[in-house]
Amino acid sequence: MKLYDFPKAPSPRRVRIFAAEKGLALTTVEVNLRQGEQFSQSYRSINPQCVVPFLVLDDGTGIGEVVAICRYLEEIAPSPPLLGTDPTSKALVAMWDHRMEVEGFAAVAEVLRNSAPTFRGRALTGPLASDQIPPLADRGRARVAAFFDMLDRRLAESSFVAGPSFSMADITALVSVDFADRVKIPAPEGHIHLKRWHENVSLRPSATA
Amino acid sequence: MKLYDFPKAPSPRRVRIFAAEKGLALTTVEVNLRQGEQFSQSYRSINPQCVVPFLVLDDGTGIGEVVAICRYLEEIAPSPPLLGTDPTSKALVAMWDHRMEVEGFAAVAEVLRNSAPTFRGRALTGPLASDQIPPLADRGRARVAAFFDMLDRRLAESSFVAGPSFSMADITALVSVDFADRVKIPAPEGHIHLKRWHENVSLRPSATA
Repeated sequence: MKLYDFPKAPSPRRVRIFAAEKGLALTTVEVNLRQGEQFSQSYRSINPQCVVPFLVLDDGTGIGEVVAICRYLEEIAPSPPLLGTDPTSKALVAMWDHRMEVEGFAAVAEVLRNSAPTFRGRALTGPLASDQIPPLADRGRARVAAFFDMLDRRLAESSFVAGPSFSMADITALVSVDFADRVKIPAPEGHIHLKRWHENVSLRPSATA
Repeated sequence: MKLYDFPKAPSPRRVRIFAAEKGLALTTVEVNLRQGEQFSQSYRSINPQCVVPFLVLDDGTGIGEVVAICRYLEEIAPSPPLLGTDPTSKALVAMWDHRMEVEGFAAVAEVLRNSAPTFRGRALTGPLASDQIPPLADRGRARVAAFFDMLDRRLAESSFVAGPSFSMADITALVSVDFADRVKIPAPEGHIHLKRWHENVSLRPSATA
């Protein structure tokens, strides 16, 4: 199988960390997002959504969306489990991962895409042209602040985001926090639980993936 | 266990249909969203996110987010499977469900919440106050149109959204299409594949849930 990827993009980083935690060495193909290669005819014919990550299996089946690619990897390489081990922990990982993605990752993307000159006319991921909406960047900043608060509160009561073990939810949270930092929205200094956790998960070898 | 629910809301309908397909009779507790009961102190103490659906297990564990509640139900009641049966079908259900949620459901919500007078000051779900952004309603309409196109194309090649079997992705797509219709964005007449599928899945007894 082959993973269509771009090393500097945060979304495929979720998959790369997930695979690294499992010791899976994925064959990657670079799609240069800086040069707009995701909109080329050749990449559209592979993934009409014009985004990475995108996994193509040996039988040609294409799998998009981070959550789906990680589900596939969990099924073919169950150890160590990153999506929970029993009904409750599986549900809690899914819950926290979804919250990290929607309240964290998507909020940061909303800021970046509605304010950075490079995303003019492309405020949405994918092929649909879309003007930037500046109030949406402001709203995104408020959402990212609320995300940091939620994450700090959660990590005051739990070693990892979804419970006592490292999971997919930590990966999505880590990528979101680092993505926010890159967009110049650093986590507040006073969020000591978030800070402790961030230092801890950043030390894992997978974090460099 | 108890499901906090509101019968007229589209988001918990995803869970109700999912449970009905499995023959699970869930005990529900109504949270009256029309009267703002989700923001009451008593409901905040149950779910600080101030949204439904929310599942509380007998041991007190709270599970929010539709995808997580459905994961829990799939694990405790595996038959009939609604989240796939092997690595590839599990990944494809996750992929299509995520697309239906983000490109369909969220786009319709974006239109409604940024245009209906009843959502003034509450353009986001949850506790964060947020002004409406009118251009976001317009952008939402364009996204819903693209969603209908994608869904019709997909259903031209597949009986159900994620493949040959009914799955969670059909539930999310059905709820999104019906939600759009309620917001006065009916699916285009010419989308015959979408229409065939919609008539078919709407006839399932679970659709009235």
